[in-house]
Amino acid sequence: MATLDVPKAEIAERLERLDVYLRTKLLPFWLENSVDEEYGGFLTYFDRDGKPTGETTKTLLCQERMVFTFASAHRAGLGGGRCLELAQRGLEFIVEFFWDTEHGGWFWIADREGRITDDSKIMYGQNFGIYAPSELAMAGGGDLARDYALKSFQAIQCGATDTLHGGYYEMLARDWTPKPGGHYGGDRKSLDIHMHMMEALTNLYEMTRSPLHERKLREVVAILLTRMLHPAHGTGIAQFALDWTPLEAIMFRNVWGSDRDAGGKPRPLNNTSFGHNVELAWLLKHTVDILGDPIDDYLEPIRKLYDHCVTCGIDPEHGGVYVEGPHDGPARDMQKEFWQQAEVLVGMLDACLLFGDRKYWDAFASTMDFVWNHMINHEVGEWVALCDRDGTVLWDYLGHAWKISYHTVRSMIQSVKRLRLLLEQG
Amino acid sequence: MATLDVPKAEIAERLERLDVYLRTKLLPFWLENSVDEEYGGFLTYFDRDGKPTGETTKTLLCQERMVFTFASAHRAGLGGGRCLELAQRGLEFIVEFFWDTEHGGWFWIADREGRITDDSKIMYGQNFGIYAPSELAMAGGGDLARDYALKSFQAIQCGATDTLHGGYYEMLARDWTPKPGGHYGGDRKSLDIHMHMMEALTNLYEMTRSPLHERKLREVVAILLTRMLHPAHGTGIAQFALDWTPLEAIMFRNVWGSDRDAGGKPRPLNNTSFGHNVELAWLLKHTVDILGDPIDDYLEPIRKLYDHCVTCGIDPEHGGVYVEGPHDGPARDMQKEFWQQAEVLVGMLDACLLFGDRKYWDAFASTMDFVWNHMINHEVGEWVALCDRDGTVLWDYLGHAWKISYHTVRSMIQSVKRLRLLLEQG
Repeated sequence: MATLDVPKAEIAERLERLDVYLRTKLLPFWLENSVDEEYGGFLTYFDRDGKPTGETTKTLLCQERMVFTFASAHRAGLGGGRCLELAQRGLEFIVEFFWDTEHGGWFWIADREGRITDDSKIMYGQNFGIYAPSELAMAGGGDLARDYALKSFQAIQCGATDTLHGGYYEMLARDWTPKPGGHYGGDRKSLDIHMHMMEALTNLYEMTRSPLHERKLREVVAILLTRMLHPAHGTGIAQFALDWTPLEAIMFRNVWGSDRDAGGKPRPLNNTSFGHNVELAWLLKHTVDILGDPIDDYLEPIRKLYDHCVTCGIDPEHGGVYVEGPHDGPARDMQKEFWQQAEVLVGMLDACLLFGDRKYWDAFASTMDFVWNHMINHEVGEWVALCDRDGTVLWDYLGHAWKISYHTVRSMIQSVKRLRLLLEQG
Repeated sequence: MATLDVPKAEIAERLERLDVYLRTKLLPFWLENSVDEEYGGFLTYFDRDGKPTGETTKTLLCQERMVFTFASAHRAGLGGGRCLELAQRGLEFIVEFFWDTEHGGWFWIADREGRITDDSKIMYGQNFGIYAPSELAMAGGGDLARDYALKSFQAIQCGATDTLHGGYYEMLARDWTPKPGGHYGGDRKSLDIHMHMMEALTNLYEMTRSPLHERKLREVVAILLTRMLHPAHGTGIAQFALDWTPLEAIMFRNVWGSDRDAGGKPRPLNNTSFGHNVELAWLLKHTVDILGDPIDDYLEPIRKLYDHCVTCGIDPEHGGVYVEGPHDGPARDMQKEFWQQAEVLVGMLDACLLFGDRKYWDAFASTMDFVWNHMINHEVGEWVALCDRDGTVLWDYLGHAWKISYHTVRSMIQSVKRLRLLLEQG
C-alpha cells in the first residue's frame, strides 16, 4: 500500500469540514425533524426548505434506513444516547406494523398510523430488515434488534431464494410468490439486490460470527463477482433473467420505483451505474475485512470498478460523478444524483487507502466540492436529490419515499473515518 | 391411455395376495416388534428370524421412516387407530431428542435412551423430517406434526440451500457448515437428496397448498429434470460437484453410509441405478398429480426412466431388478437389493396405468415373483436385505440402521392401490 501523495493539511481541512457538517448540520436535521412523536416511526418527506411536505406515507425502506442511520451514528459515537433511543423506537414501530407474522418478512408501505397499504415483499426492504436491526444490535440496541435481524434472514432464506438457479428473487407478493414478469420484475434478478444482500449479510455475520451466515455471505459475494460483473470490463451489470442471462435493465412498476425513469424504455445492455459500481467496491472491501480474508484476491475486481469510475464517471469540468454510461466508454447520462455522489466519496477514499494513488483523491475532492457547492442545502443540512451536470438543482426536495438519511449520513460517517485513517498514515 | 392387456383374474390374484400379505404379515410385524415401550421411539434392528439383534442405536432415518410408515398405513385405512397412535408417539420421541433447538433441523444418531451420539445434519434425514410429519399431519396426527414439517422446511431452506448454484447440500455439520469435501461429501450434490426433497416437498405442498411450497417444489423438479438426468438416455446421474458437473459417484463416510460399498472405488461415470430411476419416475408422477399439472409434459422423461429399467434392469431369467449399470447398456451389478425391488413394483404398476403397455406388467410380475419367492421372509413378514442374482440370500437380516418398514410397507400400500386401479379399468 503506497502512501497517498496529498498534503496532510488538505486531508485535515476536508476532514474537519465534513466532520463539523455531519455533527452540526446533517445529523441534527434528522434528529430534529424526522421523529413522528404522534404515531411512532419517522416522517421522511421534506421540501427544499426542510419543511414537511404533508405527505405522511411510511415506506418500509425509509423507516428501516432511519433505524440504520441512527444506529450507525450511535456506533460512530454521535448523538449522545439520542440516536440509539430513536433507532430503538423506530425498530419497535416497524416490528409492530410492518412485520408479517403470518408469512414472515416485512410489508412494503403503510400510512402514517401504520396501516399497511401495500403488503408486497420487496427484497430491497427485506435486505434492510437484516441490515438495520443488526446495526442496531451492534450499537447496543438489545435483543429485539438481534431477533429481527435473525428472523429477517430466516424469512428471506425461506421465501426469496431461487433454489433452481441460485441467488434471490427481487419482487414478490406477500406470500413470497414472485410477482408477474416484465415490468413487475418477478422474473428478474438484479445487482442492486445482491449487493444489498452482501451488505446485509456482512452486518449479520459481524453480529453473529455464525458459520452459516458466513457461508451465505460468501455465496452472494461469489454471485456478484462471477455473474454480475462484465467479463471484460469488470463493471456491474444491472439486471438478469432468473438464469443469470444479462438483460437490458427496465424500471419496475412497484409503489416505490426510483426517481429516474428513462421514459419506459429499457436501458441499453451496454450500461453500468457509476454509483453502484463504487458502492459495490467499498462494500466488498468491508465484507472482506469482516470475513477476515486477505484483500489481495479482491484487489483486481475492486480496482477495475474504481478505475472505470475515475476514467468515465467523474466530471473533469464540474466535478462530481455522472449517473451512468456504457461499460467501455464515456458517460451517457451526465446528471448528478445525490446517492451516487455519497457513495463515490466513501469509495474514492477507500481506493486512496487501498492503492495510494493520487487520482482517487482527486476524484474524491472533485466530488466533495460538487456536493459541497451544489448538493448540500447548508441552511437546512440535508442534500438535494438531483443536479444537472453543471450543478443546477433539478430536484430540490430533501426527503421522500426513499431518499432519506441513509446515503448521506453513512457517507459522512464513513468518509470521516477514512479521512482520519489517511491522516494517520505514515 | 391404453387399457392393459392382462386378464383381470391375474390382476385380482396378485392384488389379493399382496393385500393379504400387507395386512396379515408385513404391517403386523412392525406393529408388534418395533415399538420401544421402555424409552420411546422404535427399535429397528432385526435378524433373519425377526428377533432383536441387541443393537439399539436409534438413527434419525429409521425413527422418521417408522413415523412415515405408520402414518401412511393409517391414511391407507390400515391398523385401526394403532398406526396413528404409534406414529404420533414416534414423532414425540424424535421431537424430544433429535430436534436441534439451537440451529434447527434434526440430529443424526442417538442411543436407545435418546442421547445424541452424532449431531450431524444429513440431508437425507432432514428431508424425511418434512416427509414423515407432513404424512402424519395428513393422517390426522395434529398440530405437532404440522408444526415440525414446517419447522423442518424452514431449517432446510435456511441451512442447506446453495444460494450460489441452486440445489441443496447433502452432508453438513450440526451448525449447517458443509462437511469437508471428498468422502465426507460436503462438496457434492446428489440425485438421491434432490429426489427425496421432491418427495418431501410434494407432501408438504399437499398439506399446506402454500404457493411458496409449490415454488420450492417446482424448483427441485426442474433441477431433477434439467440437471440430473443423462442428456441422451434420460437416466439418473448419481452425483455432482456443487456447480452440477457430473462426478463419478463415491460412498460417503458418514455413520450411516449404505449397505453396498464398492470397495472404496468410485462408481464409473457411466452408471445409473435402476431402483432410483424407477422411484424417481413414480414419485414424479405423484408430484405432478399433487401440483395439478397435466401429465403430458412429463411423459417423455418418465417413459425413458421406465424403459431403461425394463430393457436393462429386469432380469429375464430369474426375475427382479438388478442394482445398477451403464446409462446405455446391460447391467453391471446384477445382485438384487430389497429397496430396488420395492420401488420397481410401484413404478411398473404406475407405468401400466400411464402407458397401458404389457411389458411393464411383465416387469412388475417378474419382480413380484422374485420378491415373493426369494426376498420375503414369509414366516416373519419382512424382507431380507440382499439376494444374489438367482435368489440366493446374501444378507438375511430384516432390519438395521436404515433398512426398515419404509420401502416395503410403502411398496405394498402403493402397489395394492395401483392394482385396484388397474382392476377398475375399462
